Amino acid sequence: MAEDKQLIRAPRGTEDILPEQISLQRFIENTARRVMELYGYREIRTPVFEDTGLYARTTGETTDIVEKEMFSINAGQEGSFVLRPEGTPGVVRAYVEHEVYKVRKFEKFYYLYHIFRYERPQAGRMRQFDQIGAEAIGSYDPLVDAETIFLASAIFNAIGLDGCKIRLNSFGCEKCRPAYRDALRRAVGGKEDGLCANCRRRLDRNIFRLLDCKEEQCKAITKDLPSIREYLDDDCRTHFAKVRELLDANGIAYQLEDRLVRGLDYYTKTVYEFAHESLGARDAVCGGGRYDGLVEQLGGPPTGGVGFAIGVVPTLLALKSTGKDKPEAAVQKGPTLFLVTIGEEDRAYVFSLLRRLREAGIAADLDFEGRSLKAQMRAANRAKARYVVVIGPDERASKKFRLKEMTTGKEEILTEGALLSSLER
Amino acid sequence: MAEDKQLIRAPRGTEDILPEQISLQRFIENTARRVMELYGYREIRTPVFEDTGLYARTTGETTDIVEKEMFSINAGQEGSFVLRPEGTPGVVRAYVEHEVYKVRKFEKFYYLYHIFRYERPQAGRMRQFDQIGAEAIGSYDPLVDAETIFLASAIFNAIGLDGCKIRLNSFGCEKCRPAYRDALRRAVGGKEDGLCANCRRRLDRNIFRLLDCKEEQCKAITKDLPSIREYLDDDCRTHFAKVRELLDANGIAYQLEDRLVRGLDYYTKTVYEFAHESLGARDAVCGGGRYDGLVEQLGGPPTGGVGFAIGVVPTLLALKSTGKDKPEAAVQKGPTLFLVTIGEEDRAYVFSLLRRLREAGIAADLDFEGRSLKAQMRAANRAKARYVVVIGPDERASKKFRLKEMTTGKEEILTEGALLSSLER
Repeated sequence: MAEDKQLIRAPRGTEDILPEQISLQRFIENTARRVMELYGYREIRTPVFEDTGLYARTTGETTDIVEKEMFSINAGQEGSFVLRPEGTPGVVRAYVEHEVYKVRKFEKFYYLYHIFRYERPQAGRMRQFDQIGAEAIGSYDPLVDAETIFLASAIFNAIGLDGCKIRLNSFGCEKCRPAYRDALRRAVGGKEDGLCANCRRRLDRNIFRLLDCKEEQCKAITKDLPSIREYLDDDCRTHFAKVRELLDANGIAYQLEDRLVRGLDYYTKTVYEFAHESLGARDAVCGGGRYDGLVEQLGGPPTGGVGFAIGVVPTLLALKSTGKDKPEAAVQKGPTLFLVTIGEEDRAYVFSLLRRLREAGIAADLDFEGRSLKAQMRAANRAKARYVVVIGPDERASKKFRLKEMTTGKEEILTEGALLSSLER
Repeated sequence: MAEDKQLIRAPRGTEDILPEQISLQRFIENTARRVMELYGYREIRTPVFEDTGLYARTTGETTDIVEKEMFSINAGQEGSFVLRPEGTPGVVRAYVEHEVYKVRKFEKFYYLYHIFRYERPQAGRMRQFDQIGAEAIGSYDPLVDAETIFLASAIFNAIGLDGCKIRLNSFGCEKCRPAYRDALRRAVGGKEDGLCANCRRRLDRNIFRLLDCKEEQCKAITKDLPSIREYLDDDCRTHFAKVRELLDANGIAYQLEDRLVRGLDYYTKTVYEFAHESLGARDAVCGGGRYDGLVEQLGGPPTGGVGFAIGVVPTLLALKSTGKDKPEAAVQKGPTLFLVTIGEEDRAYVFSLLRRLREAGIAADLDFEGRSLKAQMRAANRAKARYVVVIGPDERASKKFRLKEMTTGKEEILTEGALLSSLER
């Protein structure tokens, strides 16, 4: 051990996913991909970093994310860039930049993204984490709002996560908000001193932010505030009724949640969250909503859009809490065949056989640590190999191999051809 | 169009991958995953950013990457971090940090990583790009060197990329380098002024860097330099001979390349590149080698290791150049069924039917833009839907659907049950 070398660790707030730990995450990702493709969503990839202005303009300058949680990057005089603190703005930026609307106005995207937030690391809050998102851009149709909720439900069902609750609200549009803003000002009037410093500071620029403040002192004040839904204009009211009808007609249960605004500036009309009670105070596994102004804000034509993002880690934790975190598809299989070598002089031959097995599509492996016969058998066992063949001078000469099934001990003598043709691919 | 909004673009040197463009990349990734898992490699994920010291200590302080191509991140007083400029150091850091060697000395990892280099953007050089890598850590066995070369070959074969050439060299170890360093100094002696500024500057600290300098003036001088292979000690010479024997015995063709050192400080013994002539001057699609000192440099026990990284974009370009960029698996399929709606009053019903189809695993879709019947048919066509059903009041009442196959025009009348059971999943 080189004691003089100080150990370099993964940066605070980040973590490695080792092979032993990855199968459940892969299962969630693969399942989400499969379901999203079934629903007609197609994968998009945008850069890990973006122009800082993108988030200031969309996510909102008075949001926690933009005010204090972005990781900035040094790129000399070339501009100001940040690691993406959420997925939606980059996707919409790409939709506008490539003028996707000229080819195909309505497009359904999905992504699997690393997301970065420069938060004070604490339990459950990471600085790099993964989100799986869907963005349906190009339609004002309430069917799309419902489709995204069906889609998120279908993903959780396919993963096997039971017990998700849906919280639903409408946050209206620019036309209905002035009246609501006034109503909030009246309702908060005189209680400003009871708010947290953040909310007091943001009161003038963006009073809506206090609706999702997590500070107890603010929650005590906001619980009695009027609901935005009392202030919706005709269009927003009709739209929301239609979304609710579609959910009701299809047996999707939800709770109306007056205070749900999802902490981002761009949401309009429908906003929703999927929550799982096993997660405690930060119980959301998915959050989404409509953002009808976003494409235009980024320089495109007036265009409707709806999307959501699923948090991979909360989903994984919720799944573990239900005891259903070992779906068959997430269990790692060992190699089909492990080749055990008797002597050093047999190794080159065994290695060529290994190559032929793999080229035939058979998951085979051998020991690369020059271990004893006994230690190689132990290694085969630990690797969960299904079969073992021991190869020495006799096998090299006869080209006949004794195939042993590890669980049953059953043995069978096979030629190389039989080995290649009989083992599962 | 909001003319007052300046368009925000993807940062210079990065690019979006839109759904139309992604299928070939997905095909390469999925194929690589499948082959690597067949060979017993298992996925690892490490953070996108790491401690700056990690790369200075491993990749090397006198390399272009560390000297000038790293993107640094602002994290206040917490430390100095960079976006990963290559994959190997993070994987080895994780191997050491989690003491993987205590559980399982030999472990084979693979990764699919975004890589970041703060280079002057120019043709073919991106600031964010993807690499698929393999790292076999825990053995000094030349079989492992050969296995990684077989593995990279098997990936290119499975992708369908013909015509890769393998360049091979041994870069020796710390024991054989002093003599070679002296030989280089003697050979370069008196020609220092002909070298580029970079090489002149690095001459004292790391003379080996000039071997892979791409400047014409340096190449003119380096072409006559002695080969490291003449200076290998017994161990390195035997190891290299063994690797060559294994490649020869298994019919893997390669060219010996005296000057190949792969531009990173940590390589020892075997180094190799896969190149494709279609790519011109920067023709590598894969580069790799052995790094026997790396685990110890990062604070772990003395441990052998070998790995490679495949560049996704060069591979994709090479594949396109061969005209084999449309493997069946990379072609995007349209939905199986497109539901066309006659009237607004039919939409909620059609939407519920859509939901039942999808829950049965059938890729179905409908129009979300409120278009005319004719426009919906065109949309079905453009989406490459295999079948279409038109639904109006009659179909709603009778619950019988006329299924039309788009390519043949063949029609069949089915109940909902028959529709759900007969369409392909």
